[in-house]
Amino acid sequence: MILYNYFRSSASHRVRIALNIKGLEYEYRPVHLLNNGGEQHGEEYTKLNPSHEVPTLVHKGRAIGQSMAILDYLERIQPTPPLFPQDPYERAVVVQACEIMNSGIQPILNLRVLGELEKRYSADANSKTEWIQHWMKYGLTALETFLQRHAGTYCFGNEVTAADCFLVPQLVSGERFKVPLANYPTLNRVRANCEKLEAFIKASPLRQPDTPPTT
Amino acid sequence: MILYNYFRSSASHRVRIALNIKGLEYEYRPVHLLNNGGEQHGEEYTKLNPSHEVPTLVHKGRAIGQSMAILDYLERIQPTPPLFPQDPYERAVVVQACEIMNSGIQPILNLRVLGELEKRYSADANSKTEWIQHWMKYGLTALETFLQRHAGTYCFGNEVTAADCFLVPQLVSGERFKVPLANYPTLNRVRANCEKLEAFIKASPLRQPDTPPTT
Repeated sequence: MILYNYFRSSASHRVRIALNIKGLEYEYRPVHLLNNGGEQHGEEYTKLNPSHEVPTLVHKGRAIGQSMAILDYLERIQPTPPLFPQDPYERAVVVQACEIMNSGIQPILNLRVLGELEKRYSADANSKTEWIQHWMKYGLTALETFLQRHAGTYCFGNEVTAADCFLVPQLVSGERFKVPLANYPTLNRVRANCEKLEAFIKASPLRQPDTPPTT
Repeated sequence: MILYNYFRSSASHRVRIALNIKGLEYEYRPVHLLNNGGEQHGEEYTKLNPSHEVPTLVHKGRAIGQSMAILDYLERIQPTPPLFPQDPYERAVVVQACEIMNSGIQPILNLRVLGELEKRYSADANSKTEWIQHWMKYGLTALETFLQRHAGTYCFGNEVTAADCFLVPQLVSGERFKVPLANYPTLNRVRANCEKLEAFIKASPLRQPDTPPTT
């Protein structure tokens, strides 16, 4: 398996955690989102991922983009340990938690959206940070309410699920943009529990082959 | 089953199509996204959906939000006709197509994002329409490239899948915002084939209980 990804991309981070939980070995191929005008826009990479996004997983010569699709695929080819509960409703709870982050938070604050805010509305660095903080707070508030009903040691009960693969990168990203995180006690508790696990430690943006030495 | 939804919401539209394909009866409960400051922000509704979003499906007294989670749930409780292929890679292709719309396009142009553009950057109606058109073009261009490899009669081969439940609402929304759609021959062909099917016809935003007579 080859994972095209970027140390700091939260969608990449999710997939690294999932691969580690599943115990799947992979080759790390960095795609730098800023250098050379963004390597995700290169001709060869765009053949693998027409959305110009990381991550892309290549397995048996076939490319899969979108972190939700990749996690779903990993669950099928390597069912244990599971990332999703078997019961349909419990599974839906986990998917909903993932999507509160996957579609509810992250797309609104990715690099290309920030670029358009600058281009169209002359948004400066402060204004872009406020934009990020606003949407992160909005989504994390919903997630805290939602997970208070479902979380135990982890996002859903006491077993690690896909929701945890999404939560930790989201909070790491929140810290980076100085989002006040104290208001989310459930999320913080779950994060602390996750970060004791080797699968999460190894996947950290601070420890990847393309992490700059100064990070 | 009860579906809290809004005639014009594309995420609601996706779920209506899926329910119709599965042949599942449901009670339609309208949630008006603009009246009364947005009924999705009401106290009772927020208990069902802490993200203040439509749609929400309630089944056996339990609420599920996020269209991807709802479609996944419907697939589990009513496996036929299937909305996802069985093969792991083929399934991933369908999930990726859904996510190109679910996380790649729609979150960036929803009502609350447009509201923030107005509030923070004084974006006027024209500017907001240009924002919508920009992101729709970006995402649909990726989707056209992606589906040229996979589409037949429908998005994935010759059977209807979840990707079709996402595609038709996306293009209906594109038309509404006057996005030039001629550049997407694969998407247009698939849409035309879908719109011959009763499940899609019945789910149209033009035919719902809360559709205004002037629409």
